[in-house]
Amino acid sequence: MQLTLTPLLDIPLIKPGDDLASIILLALQRAGISLEDGDVLVLAQKIVSKAEGRLVNLSTVTASSQAVELGGRTQKDPRLVEVILRESNAVLRTRPGTIVVEHRLGFVCASAGVDHSNVLGEGDQLEDWVLLLPVNPDASAQSVRQRLESASGACLGVLIIDSHGRAWRLGTVGMAIGLAGLPGLEDLRGQPDLFGFRLQITQVGVADELAAAASLVMGQAAEGTPVVHVRGFPYALREGSLGELLRPKEQDMFR
Amino acid sequence: MQLTLTPLLDIPLIKPGDDLASIILLALQRAGISLEDGDVLVLAQKIVSKAEGRLVNLSTVTASSQAVELGGRTQKDPRLVEVILRESNAVLRTRPGTIVVEHRLGFVCASAGVDHSNVLGEGDQLEDWVLLLPVNPDASAQSVRQRLESASGACLGVLIIDSHGRAWRLGTVGMAIGLAGLPGLEDLRGQPDLFGFRLQITQVGVADELAAAASLVMGQAAEGTPVVHVRGFPYALREGSLGELLRPKEQDMFR
Repeated sequence: MQLTLTPLLDIPLIKPGDDLASIILLALQRAGISLEDGDVLVLAQKIVSKAEGRLVNLSTVTASSQAVELGGRTQKDPRLVEVILRESNAVLRTRPGTIVVEHRLGFVCASAGVDHSNVLGEGDQLEDWVLLLPVNPDASAQSVRQRLESASGACLGVLIIDSHGRAWRLGTVGMAIGLAGLPGLEDLRGQPDLFGFRLQITQVGVADELAAAASLVMGQAAEGTPVVHVRGFPYALREGSLGELLRPKEQDMFR
Repeated sequence: MQLTLTPLLDIPLIKPGDDLASIILLALQRAGISLEDGDVLVLAQKIVSKAEGRLVNLSTVTASSQAVELGGRTQKDPRLVEVILRESNAVLRTRPGTIVVEHRLGFVCASAGVDHSNVLGEGDQLEDWVLLLPVNPDASAQSVRQRLESASGACLGVLIIDSHGRAWRLGTVGMAIGLAGLPGLEDLRGQPDLFGFRLQITQVGVADELAAAASLVMGQAAEGTPVVHVRGFPYALREGSLGELLRPKEQDMFR
């Protein structure tokens, strides 16, 4: 079975309040794609966050003493650090230029996913605006999924992704931060391999694998291609959630 | 630009000494695929290791006292632990059932990539055989690449992947362990985004993103589809190496 990833072209710049589902349906139409059962739409976090108005103007933020102290140590704007801390459950590591946290959504990432680049703030100093992750990316994905399913009559998955660094490897890769209608983790426990052995590897992070694949075609500077249509996702669609992918803290050997 | 991943069907079980390039060329022919400039072939580590004869029979291994001690603590066969230690630069974390190491190739992974399942050992107790990673996966990729390029006249990339766990997330994902003819890391530093900001995210692990994508279509139990043809890889091909993807120890905050 072939896996095909098609970035949707000419998605307009997204503004707070925009209706992503309608914008995606139009882009699919322009691309000549009719949605089919099993298709997945992958959305860059930025457009979801912008549509949901997750913009903060740093001039409205008062840094706590903790943010001032951490900003000093990491050479970051204390107001930005304040926003990062509000989005985090815990600070795991810091060094100049870098703050690694457990995000309030449960995953580990740099700067709580708070993004300073590429933020739309009309009529203001662009430098003052930052963009936070969606409040509940699983719910955001579910909302877009329902609209696309109603419009198409197809059973679909929707995946929201961001670019994360890794502990031991250089370079960011696309990772799932929210999903609806597709598995996060696929449990292969008990499937015999070709020789009848039970596989020792039991679980595959299929939503993260798809996130990485979609990230590859989105590029990084390409705000023009923040939506990717996927055909041939090789796992059965089902209800899924980000929580499947989060390692419980008691199993975490690297925190 | 569309990204298409096609698993090649009917690849035979690989034995030590098999000529992978010839086997891949035949499978491409059967699939009706003519190689073009920019195509990438992704190979599962297992078939490369088997072709290179990286099989060890545990009955030939004598466990050191360190391996006996670590085997006891982790509830693993001390002879298997001995093989893992020989393939490792350092042991980073252990707990019952799990040994996380820095592999001699420089990356962090469980059990040094030594695989107990799905190993071909004709005429022996299957349980006694384990499979090690290739000696030099970049060189293995380069060797296959040269053969495929000579046969096709096209400029190609070859990527060898394995399934790795992650520090903070559940589920394995495909990761690059060797490459030739494609970038490991793509440096986006200095490319302005749509608003003229310099991007803060500077480097993308493009070979790992492609590894994850290919892993998705290979599946896990599917030794029948250990080769994936990729068309539409969105980055220019160039000489590349695994080393690009390895975080220098002095930048590692989670070791």
